[in-house]
Amino acid sequence: MADARGKAREHAHDRDAGPDGRIRVAIENVGPSVDGGRFAVKRIVGDRVDVETDCFADGHDAVAARVLWRREDEVEWREAPMTFLGGDRWRGSFEVDAPGRYRFTVTAWVDRFLSWHHDLQRRADPDDIRIAALVGAELVEGASRRADGVEGKRLADWAARLRAGGEAVALKSLGLDEALFELANRYPDRSLAFTHPTELTVVVDRERARFGTWYELFARSTSPIPGGHGTFRDVEARLPYVAELGFDVLYLPPVHPIGRAQRKGRNNALSPTPADVGSPWAIGASEGGHKSVHPQLGTLDDFRRLVARARELGIEVALDIAFQCAPDHPYVGEHPAWFRRRPDGTVQYAENPPKKYQDIYPFDFESNEWRALWEELASVFDFWAGEGVRIFRVDNPHTKPFAFWEWAIARLKRAHPGAIFLAEAFTRPKVMHRLAKLGFTQSYTYFAWRNTKQELTEYFTELAQGPGREYFRPNVWPNTPDILTEYLQFGGRPAFMARLVLAATLAASYGIYGPAFELLEARPREPGSEEYLDSEKYQVRAWDLDRDDSLREFIARVNRARRENPALQSDWSLRFFPVDNESIICYVKSTPDLENVVVTVVNLDPYHSQAGWVELDLPALGVDERSPYQMQELLSGARYLWHGGRNYVSLDVTRSPAQILRLRRKVRTERDFDYFL
Amino acid sequence: MADARGKAREHAHDRDAGPDGRIRVAIENVGPSVDGGRFAVKRIVGDRVDVETDCFADGHDAVAARVLWRREDEVEWREAPMTFLGGDRWRGSFEVDAPGRYRFTVTAWVDRFLSWHHDLQRRADPDDIRIAALVGAELVEGASRRADGVEGKRLADWAARLRAGGEAVALKSLGLDEALFELANRYPDRSLAFTHPTELTVVVDRERARFGTWYELFARSTSPIPGGHGTFRDVEARLPYVAELGFDVLYLPPVHPIGRAQRKGRNNALSPTPADVGSPWAIGASEGGHKSVHPQLGTLDDFRRLVARARELGIEVALDIAFQCAPDHPYVGEHPAWFRRRPDGTVQYAENPPKKYQDIYPFDFESNEWRALWEELASVFDFWAGEGVRIFRVDNPHTKPFAFWEWAIARLKRAHPGAIFLAEAFTRPKVMHRLAKLGFTQSYTYFAWRNTKQELTEYFTELAQGPGREYFRPNVWPNTPDILTEYLQFGGRPAFMARLVLAATLAASYGIYGPAFELLEARPREPGSEEYLDSEKYQVRAWDLDRDDSLREFIARVNRARRENPALQSDWSLRFFPVDNESIICYVKSTPDLENVVVTVVNLDPYHSQAGWVELDLPALGVDERSPYQMQELLSGARYLWHGGRNYVSLDVTRSPAQILRLRRKVRTERDFDYFL
Repeated sequence: MADARGKAREHAHDRDAGPDGRIRVAIENVGPSVDGGRFAVKRIVGDRVDVETDCFADGHDAVAARVLWRREDEVEWREAPMTFLGGDRWRGSFEVDAPGRYRFTVTAWVDRFLSWHHDLQRRADPDDIRIAALVGAELVEGASRRADGVEGKRLADWAARLRAGGEAVALKSLGLDEALFELANRYPDRSLAFTHPTELTVVVDRERARFGTWYELFARSTSPIPGGHGTFRDVEARLPYVAELGFDVLYLPPVHPIGRAQRKGRNNALSPTPADVGSPWAIGASEGGHKSVHPQLGTLDDFRRLVARARELGIEVALDIAFQCAPDHPYVGEHPAWFRRRPDGTVQYAENPPKKYQDIYPFDFESNEWRALWEELASVFDFWAGEGVRIFRVDNPHTKPFAFWEWAIARLKRAHPGAIFLAEAFTRPKVMHRLAKLGFTQSYTYFAWRNTKQELTEYFTELAQGPGREYFRPNVWPNTPDILTEYLQFGGRPAFMARLVLAATLAASYGIYGPAFELLEARPREPGSEEYLDSEKYQVRAWDLDRDDSLREFIARVNRARRENPALQSDWSLRFFPVDNESIICYVKSTPDLENVVVTVVNLDPYHSQAGWVELDLPALGVDERSPYQMQELLSGARYLWHGGRNYVSLDVTRSPAQILRLRRKVRTERDFDYFL
Repeated sequence: MADARGKAREHAHDRDAGPDGRIRVAIENVGPSVDGGRFAVKRIVGDRVDVETDCFADGHDAVAARVLWRREDEVEWREAPMTFLGGDRWRGSFEVDAPGRYRFTVTAWVDRFLSWHHDLQRRADPDDIRIAALVGAELVEGASRRADGVEGKRLADWAARLRAGGEAVALKSLGLDEALFELANRYPDRSLAFTHPTELTVVVDRERARFGTWYELFARSTSPIPGGHGTFRDVEARLPYVAELGFDVLYLPPVHPIGRAQRKGRNNALSPTPADVGSPWAIGASEGGHKSVHPQLGTLDDFRRLVARARELGIEVALDIAFQCAPDHPYVGEHPAWFRRRPDGTVQYAENPPKKYQDIYPFDFESNEWRALWEELASVFDFWAGEGVRIFRVDNPHTKPFAFWEWAIARLKRAHPGAIFLAEAFTRPKVMHRLAKLGFTQSYTYFAWRNTKQELTEYFTELAQGPGREYFRPNVWPNTPDILTEYLQFGGRPAFMARLVLAATLAASYGIYGPAFELLEARPREPGSEEYLDSEKYQVRAWDLDRDDSLREFIARVNRARRENPALQSDWSLRFFPVDNESIICYVKSTPDLENVVVTVVNLDPYHSQAGWVELDLPALGVDERSPYQMQELLSGARYLWHGGRNYVSLDVTRSPAQILRLRRKVRTERDFDYFL
């Protein structure tokens, strides 16, 4: 609508009252919003954004409200109707059909025509009805002037007949004519509309931002020759394996030249041998920095080939972006102002007294040359986006300024709206949330340290139902190169299986660090440490993927269940249900239409088999409590017939500590079973 | 501090990031605030405003934060320190010492000096300590430049000694010198501070806005001659009675000339007799309108005398402001544009089809001449403020535009910061809250219709603990001229006593409509109606104040308990405690220091005596669970010795259905009892 254009802006400086004292409508609590509109909410292409608001006026007059929305780069508002929910609450929605940024707000007005119609229904006195007909005629004449052509004419006719007067009963019927009411209602008098001055923002991402299955590996550990240094070509050869396991994101730790100065040896030793390969996070050497590839991995052409070949297999390559430098990174010599100096003239290395990280130079974001630094760092994203990378796992973003991230992420997404940023910040809750608000698409979580039923229930209820879900999208990992939890160190195979199923079914986005995970690697560097022994961070490892005890088939089945069940592909539907055994956790995810309902039960005790009665809320799952229903276990293929809300589950740690059960309704006879046909 | 001036404004258009990318601190969730700062929170003179915020930076550097605050008419910010509470949460406070409007926000910065000090404590390596001393010297030199005279000199000396070097242990001690640390900390480097751009507002009212005891009476019913028309002089004679009952606000329904056109007769009859006096809310006649007094009540001089005489007795006169007109109000002829016309040329009367209120003409706030209308209505407040009135009970504010109230209330309070506005809006919750947000000092409530223990507990918990308490101050009434509840109609004397005690102890501000209340008037106009029979709204009533069954002494005792117990003079401390009898409600109010703790128990069943065990949370009340404590019943004077949290109460409807118990601690021997001495 042309006359809606720019309305929100027009009133922006007048707050609620507007400049015109005749504006009587109030709009409060427009949502979804984050921090009063300071930050965007996040959605996925194809979502409907449900907008709600409190909207009311003084007195008894009827109010009408609409959602105004547009892509951020559009000028004209589009409009969506809002429906009254009761209690002065209204709801409307619009669909976001492309990645990018959208804006919305609410406009509302006191609608004299609606009030007139409402009052007319209740009028009985013939004189009053005749007067009301004349009032109505005037209002309908106004609508007729706002309407075009045929419709304007129809309204003018209606007004004329109302004005003509006559018998009260007939006049009342004429005034209440439903078709004419609908027509006039399409041309309301919005001259005293109020548009809420805060334009709220929606960042719309592609589907992968909501649902993704990540596999992290060190490229240098993929050589077919035991002890050899792997290359991008070797990773290419590994792709079918990754695809077979059901992963769709292959995340590589930094692939840049590795510093030689202050290089760390195996197991983080301070005195390396000449054979030591160093940490990929000690970025930069004479061969180049953040825009170069490590020569031992291959060439940029090899990298491009890898990205392209992965894409053919439905896999996206994600890169690790770690904004820090080895002492021999070219930046150190070329841009001395980007680093802080110590009084002795040396560059300030990273430290957290008494700990020192002399192999890492942090950037000084308080440098007077911060603008040049920001531009250069942003150009690193540009560079890799130019090489076809659209997913970035950002290392320790919480140690770089918030303002930088807000600027850099928005900047890249303007050019590449499909770009995805995963924040690797294991830090305090408010800092993690801040990074998510600023624009990170996904966030690492505390999942690795949530082990008991109560811990998992509380944490995932907060993630799925709390206000943070509007912007904080979890990506959960049972292990990472830095995190080998006690649970995995001591729990053996059942612990790995349980944690995998939890990650894969509690969160629509999850990942593992392999092949350490599927090969059950569980030895810490020292007791009480979460560091791996012989960590790949400091050395090349050779993995025997074909070991009999590998979880590869189990993982493939879990990931297949995820692909085939839309319920597992988003997070907000998660609900936990009671089990009379503290070692067993039970939760459900479902699609909004309840067509796909998946119940997961996991034995959290890796040492003992456990059994118990689970209690489902069947009405909430759309199941008739009086009829039996089928549960298809997606890992084993077994099928169970369940009755009522309360059913028995038994989870044998020697086989599988978890079941992923797809609910199938309306099991009336054996003919309804798939396998009967 | 001079350099804090206008900082909030300076950054207002740059949002959180500020224009300088080196600013690294984030400030979120500054409060108390209402709707993100759109509206003010309310406080009372002498309150401390507790400001909280989330405040943090990237990385591990130390952060410092301060509250900036000022009176709205001041230019310079004042500052208050903020303390770290844990979890990235900070708190600071400032005292508001005069009625009016205040502003506040939060400023914060990454503090290199604090970070340096923190790190130094953990340093062990002698070389590192020597380097750190040089870094510290530079930071202290900066502080020295920001400090004046002697202190600047002391800091410069300290810096010089740090710079001089020496033995590491001694250098570390020097760097950690506490007195010098405190001194340097007073001159932080705030060049990269961030000030939150939203200035939040506090409206500060005088004490009466929080704690007041209201008595409503019809001036015309105060004549000593039965059947005679009372006058302001008669009201003057009634003042000692009102004071004796313990009231400090005397609220008069409209005192203006009453319209003759369409005048209503007794019991709202449509055909009045010439003797009928009409409704005081049908305002305006040939004698004048909203700025005139009804000739039968006396002169403006009489009114002034009444106001002055009341003040001598500690009573404030509150006026009813009802913005509506009788058909013969002078405005109708003088300002035809302020009223809506019907198509037949007549003025549109108030209606809610099929109901008609032909004696009332509402103003048309959508008039093109709304500005003149607003100015005139605002001048009504000016006029009565000029006559010494500072409390206005506003009739049906929810049927006039929100924007008008926000403007009009702010306008009067600029001239008279002590003005109090009570919103008489019995309507939907969000509309009532909106009016409170817009500036009404106090609000009528749903108290009259909350009768059961559950209803009272839920409603008053919401009022005392919910987010609305920042702006919505309840003023609760067991009856009004429009509200004679079923509970009072049928419950007899115990019902009146119970409702009085509930009102007086649940809410710091309450009122009754008398003498109907103390004389137990309970006859409705018709069954099922909440209207009084022979309502004073339409006729003069003569009341026999000296009747034996009057509640005047009981009311005086209740109001004395309120005056003598600060716990009952504010609302936020209210907490309910369990009783094993659904007919008995128990709640506690206390002062923040727990010096004054008042437990109230009320039998909600007016027909039967009830008894039960109440369970107090003694630790929360500051009482040692192992020692007995005394309960002094303030209505009867009786004293009880209670032990532990669980105690028995018995409430006899033939005597008093309620007890107001003041808790006295540390009852060790009979010598501690007041009456022993």
